[in-house]
Amino acid sequence: MKGFHFGPWPIRPNEIFFTSKLSIGLVNLKPIVPGHVLVVPRRIVLRFADLTSDEVSDMFLSAQAIGKVIEREYGGESLTITLQDGPKAGQTVPHVHVHVIPRKTGDWANNDDIYPEIDRKEKELAGELKAPKGVDNEERPPRTQEDMGREAEQLRKHFQQYEDIWN
Amino acid sequence: MKGFHFGPWPIRPNEIFFTSKLSIGLVNLKPIVPGHVLVVPRRIVLRFADLTSDEVSDMFLSAQAIGKVIEREYGGESLTITLQDGPKAGQTVPHVHVHVIPRKTGDWANNDDIYPEIDRKEKELAGELKAPKGVDNEERPPRTQEDMGREAEQLRKHFQQYEDIWN
Repeated sequence: MKGFHFGPWPIRPNEIFFTSKLSIGLVNLKPIVPGHVLVVPRRIVLRFADLTSDEVSDMFLSAQAIGKVIEREYGGESLTITLQDGPKAGQTVPHVHVHVIPRKTGDWANNDDIYPEIDRKEKELAGELKAPKGVDNEERPPRTQEDMGREAEQLRKHFQQYEDIWN
Repeated sequence: MKGFHFGPWPIRPNEIFFTSKLSIGLVNLKPIVPGHVLVVPRRIVLRFADLTSDEVSDMFLSAQAIGKVIEREYGGESLTITLQDGPKAGQTVPHVHVHVIPRKTGDWANNDDIYPEIDRKEKELAGELKAPKGVDNEERPPRTQEDMGREAEQLRKHFQQYEDIWN
């Protein structure tokens, strides 16, 4: 399959802020906080167990590199790094992806209130991708392409890129 | 530091079910479900960013290998794999650790009710380790050494071990 995909959906280069040999970093259509991004293997596989060793290493080394920048750039003090591996763990997009989320004091009243939020957004994300112009139950509209593109462009500068997909 | 540690606390070999070159797999004092285990780098570092590339790869390749076995052996259908990286993300033990948790239909009423549970257990775990004979707010007593040892021994057989720490 040519180009980049997140599950069955094509991903535009302007949503991508990070490229490694086997993974990409994406900004989010509906981040739960600013700086909530996704790390995705280039190859479309459903489950973590389906990744090769090289893909596992590449994906989490990418998550580590991305986490450092995200935490600093968005004023975080910690990171939530989570892989909902399979539908019964909350995965909605059939393509392995790691959430990297900057955390700070008081960002949620209770620390783990973040997780239902991740779950809700996963469901919305799947809905949005399936029917990008459709109506959903979310009162807040998804971000514009321009907004996502600006964020990705800002972040992009902080990383050594495996390839230039933007020019 | 000789032997194995989880943060400042020594870990007994009979709590360990998995050894790789740079990581170990531990059974839990208070698992939130059967099969909830931890993957921990051998070297004691606080944050994910502090790990070397080799440690990152080793820890998540270990998590992948462990996840496959845990999911099968405990009748799971999915896995929650999560790294609470720093105190503001819910980390209580000052040593990087990945939670690997088998998931199945209906295990929690709402999928993400699992996370407050992880958080609560993290806090308890820190309390237990600090004061293993002390009183805490948890009505359910921690598991016995024998119980943990039995589980680790069962799991141990499913893995190719980097070293034999048990004989």
